Amino acid sequence: MMPPHLPPGSLIRAIEVIAILVGAFSGFIEARRKRMDLVGVFTVAFITAFGGGTLRDILLDKRPLFWVAHQEYAILTFVLALIAAPLIRTLRQIVSERLIVIADAIGLGLFAIAGVSEALRAGMPLFIASMMGVITGIFGGVLRDIVCNEVPMVLRDGKPYAICAFIGCWLYLAQKHFGVAADVALWTSATAITVMRLLTWKFDMRLGR
Amino acid sequence: MMPPHLPPGSLIRAIEVIAILVGAFSGFIEARRKRMDLVGVFTVAFITAFGGGTLRDILLDKRPLFWVAHQEYAILTFVLALIAAPLIRTLRQIVSERLIVIADAIGLGLFAIAGVSEALRAGMPLFIASMMGVITGIFGGVLRDIVCNEVPMVLRDGKPYAICAFIGCWLYLAQKHFGVAADVALWTSATAITVMRLLTWKFDMRLGR
Amino acid sequence: MMPPHLPPGSLIRAIEVIAILVGAFSGFIEARRKRMDLVGVFTVAFITAFGGGTLRDILLDKRPLFWVAHQEYAILTFVLALIAAPLIRTLRQIVSERLIVIADAIGLGLFAIAGVSEALRAGMPLFIASMMGVITGIFGGVLRDIVCNEVPMVLRDGKPYAICAFIGCWLYLAQKHFGVAADVALWTSATAITVMRLLTWKFDMRLGR
Repeated sequence: MMPPHLPPGSLIRAIEVIAILVGAFSGFIEARRKRMDLVGVFTVAFITAFGGGTLRDILLDKRPLFWVAHQEYAILTFVLALIAAPLIRTLRQIVSERLIVIADAIGLGLFAIAGVSEALRAGMPLFIASMMGVITGIFGGVLRDIVCNEVPMVLRDGKPYAICAFIGCWLYLAQKHFGVAADVALWTSATAITVMRLLTWKFDMRLGR
Repeated sequence: MMPPHLPPGSLIRAIEVIAILVGAFSGFIEARRKRMDLVGVFTVAFITAFGGGTLRDILLDKRPLFWVAHQEYAILTFVLALIAAPLIRTLRQIVSERLIVIADAIGLGLFAIAGVSEALRAGMPLFIASMMGVITGIFGGVLRDIVCNEVPMVLRDGKPYAICAFIGCWLYLAQKHFGVAADVALWTSATAITVMRLLTWKFDMRLGR
Repeated sequence: MMPPHLPPGSLIRAIEVIAILVGAFSGFIEARRKRMDLVGVFTVAFITAFGGGTLRDILLDKRPLFWVAHQEYAILTFVLALIAAPLIRTLRQIVSERLIVIADAIGLGLFAIAGVSEALRAGMPLFIASMMGVITGIFGGVLRDIVCNEVPMVLRDGKPYAICAFIGCWLYLAQKHFGVAADVALWTSATAITVMRLLTWKFDMRLGR
């Protein structure tokens, strides 16, 4: 799900791994809350971390899938599930909610912009590209909640999570339209999503119903 | 999801838009019943309106997807979600259940026949083609109910909804087999589905369990 | 989902039909427990029998799907749903749980090894191939439970079901690596999965949580 035109620098790779870890970790927690076993913990973590990008690639008919081309991420999730399953209570005490929200906000920004940029490269029209960005950012969590037999949190909690991704995607599309360099557009938009998400979380903003 | 060999007349376009609106509207109502927020209302409406055709196209490996090639339908659903979310109670009073059922029956006929004709053009065997017709007609609602954490209504209420689509698809296949002109086969079959659905609804028929 | 390099002998065809029947049968039972109608019984049976292989083929972008190329299996499921729906109570008394578990264990082995071998032929890396094997073996049941609005049994019951498939897939991969003949690798691995599953079932083994 990493945008292919990013330089393969260690910072980006680190952020990418963090984003996947955060997705997997939120899957671990939800799977344990549902009293799932090791297989469930791995499956739900995997779906949470890779579900959004996989759905986007299926809709765009793009292969190989991200986690197929990079099996090291699937193996990482598997090893983590083996380690995390017995340690999950301890992990939840060590890792504060604040840290999870911050890492998740970084992941949301990175994945959403990777999604919109991928869709644009595949020749999608603008609105569809912005939808693909949001799908990449949020559908891991939606699929996690469906497998865990819950109404997806992101669709009902009234917090501007998907909206932040949506606005950031349009910021990216606008910059591309006005000829801003790809890398600048990418980093400013991803950062904007992360900042928006953190601000709306800090001030506990809600959408009207 | 519109059959490509239909003349692009304004009547067909109008019916198509109505069918999508009806799908989206049933998504709105279900999303609100689940107390979802704006993001949920849009997502569920979108899945209800486009889910059946999208699943069919993924199974047939056909791209671009209908709503990707015609982003105006996605935008329409988005604008409607913005407008509808605060107005949903008023809308439910204005739009009678009778009107919804009639529009939905028209949509069922049109989508099912579009599905079977699309599958036939893709070289599917007959029984598979009829299944693709039914999937196109009913899976929007199935996916809507899964996201809303319900056992899908169409699979449990005992009303002959999918059955009407199934019979109509075979009526279409039979007419194609006997050399009836494509347009005649299409319209008579779609109409047959709509009429069957409305009759079984009016007389409250049930399948045996 | 049948491995293409298997000789088309009557034994294999018989096992394949049995595996599909078992999948469909478990779908029948679950659909009836949820008080679904005929449409639901067919849909859930179909998803249970073909869901795992379909998901694998979508992830691998392989077409036509197994049940599209062999519509006789879809028709068989349809006819069975027609017959089984009214007879389900009687059937549950005739068919003992022991028989279901044995047939299901045979199906698990066959489908998992078919999945891993298919993925390997599509050029997947080893860990991904093993995941595809497990997905082929277990995701029919996962999708069945999602449609039936349950937390998927295989993800939560703590029984080593997916684990047996996973170990067997690696047994297959190891044999391929060491140059064992394809047929030998296939049959020994599938048998190993079936035996492991039956042993862990007989001795009621659990994974730790």
